[in-house]
Amino acid sequence: MTVETAQLESNLFHSLIAEKKIYASNGKGVYMTIEKNGKVYDGVVDAVTGAAVGALGWADPDVPGIVNEALKKHTYSFPGFICNQQAEKLAQFYIKNCPEGVFASALWTCSGSESNENALKIIRQYQKERGRPQKIKVISRENSYHGFTLGASSISDNAISEGFKDIMIDQKELCLKMPRCFPYRDMRAGETEEQYTQRLLEVLEQMIIDNDPETVSAVIVETLPGSSIGTAVPPKGYLKGLRDICNKYDVLFMLDEVMCGTGRCNPNGKLNCWENFLAPEDAPDIQTVGKTLGSGYVTIAGVLVGPKIVNAYIGGSGLVIGAQTYHSHALNCAVSLGIQEKIIREGLTANIFKNGNLMGQKLKDALLNDSNSIVGDVRGLGGFWTVQLVKNKETKESFPYDLQVASLFNDIALQNGLNIMGLTNTDLAGSWDIALYAPSFIITEDDVDTIVDRTVKSVAQLQSDLKKAGSL
Amino acid sequence: MTVETAQLESNLFHSLIAEKKIYASNGKGVYMTIEKNGKVYDGVVDAVTGAAVGALGWADPDVPGIVNEALKKHTYSFPGFICNQQAEKLAQFYIKNCPEGVFASALWTCSGSESNENALKIIRQYQKERGRPQKIKVISRENSYHGFTLGASSISDNAISEGFKDIMIDQKELCLKMPRCFPYRDMRAGETEEQYTQRLLEVLEQMIIDNDPETVSAVIVETLPGSSIGTAVPPKGYLKGLRDICNKYDVLFMLDEVMCGTGRCNPNGKLNCWENFLAPEDAPDIQTVGKTLGSGYVTIAGVLVGPKIVNAYIGGSGLVIGAQTYHSHALNCAVSLGIQEKIIREGLTANIFKNGNLMGQKLKDALLNDSNSIVGDVRGLGGFWTVQLVKNKETKESFPYDLQVASLFNDIALQNGLNIMGLTNTDLAGSWDIALYAPSFIITEDDVDTIVDRTVKSVAQLQSDLKKAGSL
Repeated sequence: MTVETAQLESNLFHSLIAEKKIYASNGKGVYMTIEKNGKVYDGVVDAVTGAAVGALGWADPDVPGIVNEALKKHTYSFPGFICNQQAEKLAQFYIKNCPEGVFASALWTCSGSESNENALKIIRQYQKERGRPQKIKVISRENSYHGFTLGASSISDNAISEGFKDIMIDQKELCLKMPRCFPYRDMRAGETEEQYTQRLLEVLEQMIIDNDPETVSAVIVETLPGSSIGTAVPPKGYLKGLRDICNKYDVLFMLDEVMCGTGRCNPNGKLNCWENFLAPEDAPDIQTVGKTLGSGYVTIAGVLVGPKIVNAYIGGSGLVIGAQTYHSHALNCAVSLGIQEKIIREGLTANIFKNGNLMGQKLKDALLNDSNSIVGDVRGLGGFWTVQLVKNKETKESFPYDLQVASLFNDIALQNGLNIMGLTNTDLAGSWDIALYAPSFIITEDDVDTIVDRTVKSVAQLQSDLKKAGSL
Repeated sequence: MTVETAQLESNLFHSLIAEKKIYASNGKGVYMTIEKNGKVYDGVVDAVTGAAVGALGWADPDVPGIVNEALKKHTYSFPGFICNQQAEKLAQFYIKNCPEGVFASALWTCSGSESNENALKIIRQYQKERGRPQKIKVISRENSYHGFTLGASSISDNAISEGFKDIMIDQKELCLKMPRCFPYRDMRAGETEEQYTQRLLEVLEQMIIDNDPETVSAVIVETLPGSSIGTAVPPKGYLKGLRDICNKYDVLFMLDEVMCGTGRCNPNGKLNCWENFLAPEDAPDIQTVGKTLGSGYVTIAGVLVGPKIVNAYIGGSGLVIGAQTYHSHALNCAVSLGIQEKIIREGLTANIFKNGNLMGQKLKDALLNDSNSIVGDVRGLGGFWTVQLVKNKETKESFPYDLQVASLFNDIALQNGLNIMGLTNTDLAGSWDIALYAPSFIITEDDVDTIVDRTVKSVAQLQSDLKKAGSL
């Protein structure tokens, strides 16, 4: 079939490329307007802020002032040669709001993918700077997501990247995968949390040994995995166990907090998700961040670099050659800093930790008690939660992949004024359906109730539809 | 050596990471303020706009209005599920300002690197959609630059990417390199432009034949190569020759116009650089853009997709799975559209083509006539020019790499109130020193004279310094 340009319903190369898209057209606070097939959905509660991006609400009254102030003195320069104080100030702010001494330097990028790409290069150069060029392999996880670009895809493992494995960085010798950490699906009957953790850690250690520890460079995981398996909270001792194994074999420990970090899940009113699980002395050596950093207003992400890496560079060449055009972009950094200062000043990371956990508890209370419900699990932390839909709650059997139940759930939720992110994910054993929740940091208890009510209504409707269709 | 975080002069992971950076601190029109080692350089004429990024001048009076209007209705949504009209409008604008029928769809990213990463994935999926999965190899050029991320680096070849070759996509089987097109260094004595072109085209054709045409997917070049070799204008018939070879062997023809495109070098007051060299029927099948698209105010770039590729998708799955968080970001697209509309409305691409060419001619007149000068070549087109510095003008011998003459030139130029981008590039045969010129589209004849005068002064000073140091 050949279609003339003029016949296309959309000129954007996204999703079904020739078809009319769904559009977001307006927003105020935690509510937005969405247009679909000519129908306008007003007052949709934004329970996921796109992809866990929003920290402030939409049309935040302070953002125009922040942007206009930044524009007054804005210039662009190539950061490999000429930097700007806006980027320095954002680096100082971020480092200061982490436990003392954990990070020493920052690089600002434009996306989580770019952050992970740059982190891979920093890790590679680190090993060369310290005279360990043979340390080249990185170990990430099965069923993981670290980005869309080819380098970031190479350390990922999911349906999105599957079709591009044949043009990725070597998956056999360089980008190794250890098992995911997904208690709901993978814990064995009778296994304790500690035993499950121990089992996963033993696999990693054996993998390092089998691959020659002298060639292993880094272990990379999301602190709280996002779109891949859906906010599976790491079991007791898991992250600390990874850190200890990294220490034992002289391997860098990298955390990807693009989706779960920068205030979304911090218990201390600060920034990092890992502070729920790790003491400062067990902090990652390098960490990527993004999403809420720009809160959807500017397209910024970052790499935070710990003193171990910085010192290896200083003891070596001291030099990063080249840069991306929009690394540490002055306007993005200035706007991001203004937003982050407001968030800390107004206690919004503390608010989302409290009200996010409230939302999680209320979702659990409302959805997990009915043994006939299609909700198999509700899990998460702070402002980041997942509802998992299953055909059989007892056996945890998923719906068939072809049903695309998560997508049906998205549609019904929108009809009920609820914006979430439903995803049907796959592994070798099959598929599973999840819906992600990641609202703005400004949500109130009333907003929580609205989200929970509309979720309950949507689940009931989906369950009824599936029954009618003979799928249950 | 171990340095405590507190002792670092900078917290940005750029260039010499522990040292105090040079900062851009303010700008108005084509002039900016730069701070270096505590000294403030005011009224620096910005002859390169960072990395050929600026289209409008700094502190453009219309940009705050454009941004504020965009902020009024701004929301962020995940573009894989929910798009926005701002992105559609920018796509329509760009497609409309290209020759009719050349492009059908657009994807907006945050950087040239991301654009090239996404283009590689689009090309890969295109071959699968049309049932040619064995077409997997891409051919780009030696001494090329297509970005900083690992996928984009894999189709590049330069000193920046050299240290990361061991973690790139397969350089032997997948990412092949043909010879660069660099007449100043590579044309043989007595060879005509046509003969040189023919020689390069024959190498490509033989390379496709040797690598089995059934496995070759795309040829990728910068229309006017930027930072890699410095605005070497493609000789007569070169790009048309590439296009014809691609047609002959069923290979996609991709142009990277991230640096040279979007109005910087268009002869018709429009957008594409290739319109200098190719008829609409020889247009690329896919093209990446960036830089001036956001003019340094927003971090946006893009991929333009031609009907051949769009139709293959429509005839296949029709579907792009997944997206990057900040693909087709509403605020970036709205601001970019406002900027591009102003540029076309005020005839600024026509202005930069005229005054850029005037700048090039004046640089040639001022620098090329002295047979003892260290300026070996002045080359370029429209708003994108290069001054190449050589030790011996007769033999074209370069300065020794260790002298880093381009860097010395940067320093002297800044002292004389001139911001350019000096680069010492390398190939297997040695190195060469270039300075890039890519001013804002708003430059006047007076600005051109200022740039030329300060360049002449700086070259003279550099030449004198090199003589004193015994390097000449």
